[in-house]
Amino acid sequence: MTPPIFALLTDFGLEDEYVGLIKAALLARLPEARIFDLCHAVPPQDIAEGAFILARALPHLPPACFVIVVVDPGVGGTRRLLAAQLAGRWYLAPDNGLLTPVLRQHPEQIIVLHPPDQLLSKASTTFHGRDLLAPMAASLATRLAAGGSTADLGEAVPAESCCFLPDSSLMKEHASIQGEIIHIDHFGNLASNIRRDDLPATAPMAACVVTIGGLEITGISRAYNEKPPGQPLALWDSGNVLEIAVNGGSAAKVLGAAKNMAVKVHWLAG
Amino acid sequence: MTPPIFALLTDFGLEDEYVGLIKAALLARLPEARIFDLCHAVPPQDIAEGAFILARALPHLPPACFVIVVVDPGVGGTRRLLAAQLAGRWYLAPDNGLLTPVLRQHPEQIIVLHPPDQLLSKASTTFHGRDLLAPMAASLATRLAAGGSTADLGEAVPAESCCFLPDSSLMKEHASIQGEIIHIDHFGNLASNIRRDDLPATAPMAACVVTIGGLEITGISRAYNEKPPGQPLALWDSGNVLEIAVNGGSAAKVLGAAKNMAVKVHWLAG
Amino acid sequence: MTPPIFALLTDFGLEDEYVGLIKAALLARLPEARIFDLCHAVPPQDIAEGAFILARALPHLPPACFVIVVVDPGVGGTRRLLAAQLAGRWYLAPDNGLLTPVLRQHPEQIIVLHPPDQLLSKASTTFHGRDLLAPMAASLATRLAAGGSTADLGEAVPAESCCFLPDSSLMKEHASIQGEIIHIDHFGNLASNIRRDDLPATAPMAACVVTIGGLEITGISRAYNEKPPGQPLALWDSGNVLEIAVNGGSAAKVLGAAKNMAVKVHWLAG
Repeated sequence: MTPPIFALLTDFGLEDEYVGLIKAALLARLPEARIFDLCHAVPPQDIAEGAFILARALPHLPPACFVIVVVDPGVGGTRRLLAAQLAGRWYLAPDNGLLTPVLRQHPEQIIVLHPPDQLLSKASTTFHGRDLLAPMAASLATRLAAGGSTADLGEAVPAESCCFLPDSSLMKEHASIQGEIIHIDHFGNLASNIRRDDLPATAPMAACVVTIGGLEITGISRAYNEKPPGQPLALWDSGNVLEIAVNGGSAAKVLGAAKNMAVKVHWLAG
Repeated sequence: MTPPIFALLTDFGLEDEYVGLIKAALLARLPEARIFDLCHAVPPQDIAEGAFILARALPHLPPACFVIVVVDPGVGGTRRLLAAQLAGRWYLAPDNGLLTPVLRQHPEQIIVLHPPDQLLSKASTTFHGRDLLAPMAASLATRLAAGGSTADLGEAVPAESCCFLPDSSLMKEHASIQGEIIHIDHFGNLASNIRRDDLPATAPMAACVVTIGGLEITGISRAYNEKPPGQPLALWDSGNVLEIAVNGGSAAKVLGAAKNMAVKVHWLAG
Repeated sequence: MTPPIFALLTDFGLEDEYVGLIKAALLARLPEARIFDLCHAVPPQDIAEGAFILARALPHLPPACFVIVVVDPGVGGTRRLLAAQLAGRWYLAPDNGLLTPVLRQHPEQIIVLHPPDQLLSKASTTFHGRDLLAPMAASLATRLAAGGSTADLGEAVPAESCCFLPDSSLMKEHASIQGEIIHIDHFGNLASNIRRDDLPATAPMAACVVTIGGLEITGISRAYNEKPPGQPLALWDSGNVLEIAVNGGSAAKVLGAAKNMAVKVHWLAG
């Protein structure tokens, strides 16, 4: 049997031992666990950004893995802990909207976790990732590997009972769509909330006009090097969202861009 | 046999390949090694901070792991390299005070490592983590797994021969205790050197008054959300030390706090 | 059979999920893969710095590992993807000079990768690390483990057909050599492009004079603590290049040094 794979996505940063202790909690229970970091740089308590990164990662995760997602401003309060199964993978997170991209895809099952007393009695009120989610994820992996039931891990609930983030607010008109920048990456690339399939399939990419911060970019490129170095361009990024980039440079610097900046695409009315 | 687990705690940061080369040195000798990062953001050469993070991690480490700790301003000099066994785990580090939290718990054995000539002859004078500690840790794990002796890895020494950091300086009075902020985490939470058991068991948490930087906080909360968002609070953190936090925010920003800031707890004289 | 080991070196940083998705791509194909991070802090698109870190790591990598190196400003364009075998290890990277330190050591074979249509048809134009290099590395590891041929992974090419970075520009005179600072590490240590074997074997280290930024340092030390705390010194670092450091401090801060600063070594004419 292949040992279980765990992926971690948090807002813990890497300045402290917090991520390390999630791994320690998993390895203490499952020494054969394989663990990899998806990202720990979600801005503190920014649930929407955590959900955005999770959404981008979803299509690329290994089959049969356990994804632990922790952005948890309500830790120690009454918010629930969820485990959702989707396409063979399991996602564990607080019920605060983080799992929105999973919930929208109609998970096979959703469980509100009821950690056993032996965990609850020793749990801190400030670090449920270490004290509850990681142990429950290990427990879940162990049961599934043994062909056991997940029934006593908690109670099945419908998706509608769970917390969802609001839909991203796109303004659609006859031949245009307006969204906003929702993520700026390490390279200074600007990712928007406009997805490729928000445009009609017939919209001609070369004739689209993208407007951002007073700048007009004609055409949606297929690769960075379709424009000369240093020049802004628009393309569909590796997650299929509209990205503003600069060939060989940083669009964030060149455009002085920030999160929430408006971005608009016009296409030829067909 | 389960492959050995190694945990790494250093002041190397992640800007260079240094942490990667410690892992390479382990995997070169033990391809089946499982390695996880505890933390690499100890400020350069800050032995006390390294010991603090080690102390917080101790209760949560997997059983039977090997912890390599490197904050080593004396590298290349005459300081010794230690391996200490405590509760089934092994800790390897320079003898410069880093292992204080381990040494205080009366390790089963402490060995001053004598690396073999084949290592010494090729070792750099500036990177003993890669050239000596990681190879010796791999060697130790291999011997233990084979049921072999650790006798020829070095010489057993008593804890008293090792370097200790001074006790943290708490000022205790009849119904109060004063300490200081010793760590500011990624979220801006302020961790002090006052532990829960420094207060009498009978001290009523709701009536304690915590003073920091001219601010008075009444009551020690159990969770962040016991105060309104944006408001400072005190609680016992996931490592059981007094923490000053802001619900949904950064105490470091709100209070303009820095390391070594004084913090005091008063309780009702019982 | 020992599961294959993969090492990752990129300019992706850790702010996004990009490194995580390379790991996901490997684990999706090879759940038993062991993956470790060499470094992800190469400055964006800085091929020379990536090659420098790779060069420093080369002698220390585990035998029989697969090293995926991604600094890829030409992604989506016509640059080729290479896999080079050297001393039992495989290096996969874009053909843009990144592999210079490998190519200079006369690899056993170099393959221009031809990803199969099933990969190409789904590949993004901006993230070939995730979509092409990682899958091809997994494929290579699988074939080699099965004793299979690498012939259909691509076409063998001679090193001369590949992209090389220019030699580092050292100015050598009768009894001196001048180079420059090419890397500043986490500790503020300044690494130059002068290697130990650029000096005659007979040059007396204690009598060498190192000049940097108007400062003269007499003698090349063997360890940091040969000078008093706070004082600049020169030594051969753990990668055998001339390093300027400050015992217990940061040479970058003390000297106000930056990359490309000139550094010169004089020795006694023998």
